[in-house]
Amino acid sequence: MSNELHSAPLTGHFPFCVEPFQEDITGQLSWGVLGNLLLRCANLHAGSLNYGYKDMIARQHVWVLARLIVEIDRMPRTEERYDIATWFAGYYRQFSDRKYLITNDNGEPIGRALTVWSLINTETRTAADLAQFGGNTFDACIVSRELSLAAPARIRIKANTPERQLTAHFSDLDINGHVNSIRYLSHALDLFPLSFHTAHTLRRIEMAYSAETFAGDTISYYHDEISPLTHHIEVRKHTPLSPTEEVVCRICLIFSEASA
Amino acid sequence: MSNELHSAPLTGHFPFCVEPFQEDITGQLSWGVLGNLLLRCANLHAGSLNYGYKDMIARQHVWVLARLIVEIDRMPRTEERYDIATWFAGYYRQFSDRKYLITNDNGEPIGRALTVWSLINTETRTAADLAQFGGNTFDACIVSRELSLAAPARIRIKANTPERQLTAHFSDLDINGHVNSIRYLSHALDLFPLSFHTAHTLRRIEMAYSAETFAGDTISYYHDEISPLTHHIEVRKHTPLSPTEEVVCRICLIFSEASA
Repeated sequence: MSNELHSAPLTGHFPFCVEPFQEDITGQLSWGVLGNLLLRCANLHAGSLNYGYKDMIARQHVWVLARLIVEIDRMPRTEERYDIATWFAGYYRQFSDRKYLITNDNGEPIGRALTVWSLINTETRTAADLAQFGGNTFDACIVSRELSLAAPARIRIKANTPERQLTAHFSDLDINGHVNSIRYLSHALDLFPLSFHTAHTLRRIEMAYSAETFAGDTISYYHDEISPLTHHIEVRKHTPLSPTEEVVCRICLIFSEASA
Repeated sequence: MSNELHSAPLTGHFPFCVEPFQEDITGQLSWGVLGNLLLRCANLHAGSLNYGYKDMIARQHVWVLARLIVEIDRMPRTEERYDIATWFAGYYRQFSDRKYLITNDNGEPIGRALTVWSLINTETRTAADLAQFGGNTFDACIVSRELSLAAPARIRIKANTPERQLTAHFSDLDINGHVNSIRYLSHALDLFPLSFHTAHTLRRIEMAYSAETFAGDTISYYHDEISPLTHHIEVRKHTPLSPTEEVVCRICLIFSEASA
């Protein structure tokens, strides 16, 4: 791979440790914390290669998350160290792929992830053609490394009443002014009773984002149980001024029995 | 101060940086993140002095947060570095005081905090007399350092209908199995519209905890506006089996105008 434009490594490594108050009730790193760390690593690594959030803002563009897939074989527990490796895996039209390999303290793989991003013009709100926008920059950053991660499910929700409805508040928002992308995952997990979480382990999540939500929006969660271990959830929003529901995010959750 | 029992410094220093996705919509470190970091520093520092969570669990006791007071002159913003210094400030009967000084990258103070903890026997659920329990250990750890922090307000709520009521879910719980102590602060901040948060800056919080909540509990927020900038909130819980409300936490929030 050519790497003439910058000195940063094409694969970024970010070491972490499961800190107190980052776990869920089972003592594992919470999925909400892991999700935000994956987004943070994307931003840090892209920044080291000169196409991060700041670089793009200077060109009136912003990276927007379109998709997140995470598979975990064994979630790290309190005080365990782990490493998130991430690289830019390529782009096509308006979407760019970033892949991740999560390893434990012995360097053994414990998880894999993919994030898909589009680059939105902050004035026109349209997605840039990445070949046009930064082909030279992006081409030099691509790492062709295999990562075994199944394609996402097709999600068509049958439920016609929301299982939960809530209003977006201040603490749901991130610096971008919209509800934090990972918050929908936490809310989706909250559709299950505690007894389900202690009897099952979440193994894989798929999140496909199609719209943002803002403070005051009503957010509805529609939930189909495909099988006892596979659940599809559609997140929709509406507002008093715009009462027609719009799809925000589609989610697939795949669990295993906790003993597995 | 004598320090014969351990080699760790009596004042712990924990350097941090405001990472992406740790900010609120205003670009400042979110109060929720800061609150959990203060608890994390308490645990790390107590652990370094051999009276942390693990040490106490081995003796069938657990530290429980009774009070949290935080004053912030200027909250750090994205990518800014800051340091949390913390020390054990003394104990009396069943309560121990831990103090904190938060400084910016130039070493200038930007905030102060106090946490008060009691040590609960995990079998009898009663609080230990700290002089009896670990007088020798604790005495050697005390740092007599002045910290200017006003005493907390007396909170007596007049509101007789809750401003918000919600149910505790999986993602609200921490490894201890109860709703995370800082979650009540986030919910309290969510009682205010976004327009209030962008026009005001939170300067001081006081949290006085009196009970835990668990998955499925109904949590109600009663809110008195004492003045436009001073707000008192009482958090109460009830369950279908125990419908009488019990006080969980009393909160005082003091804001300034955002320009201040």
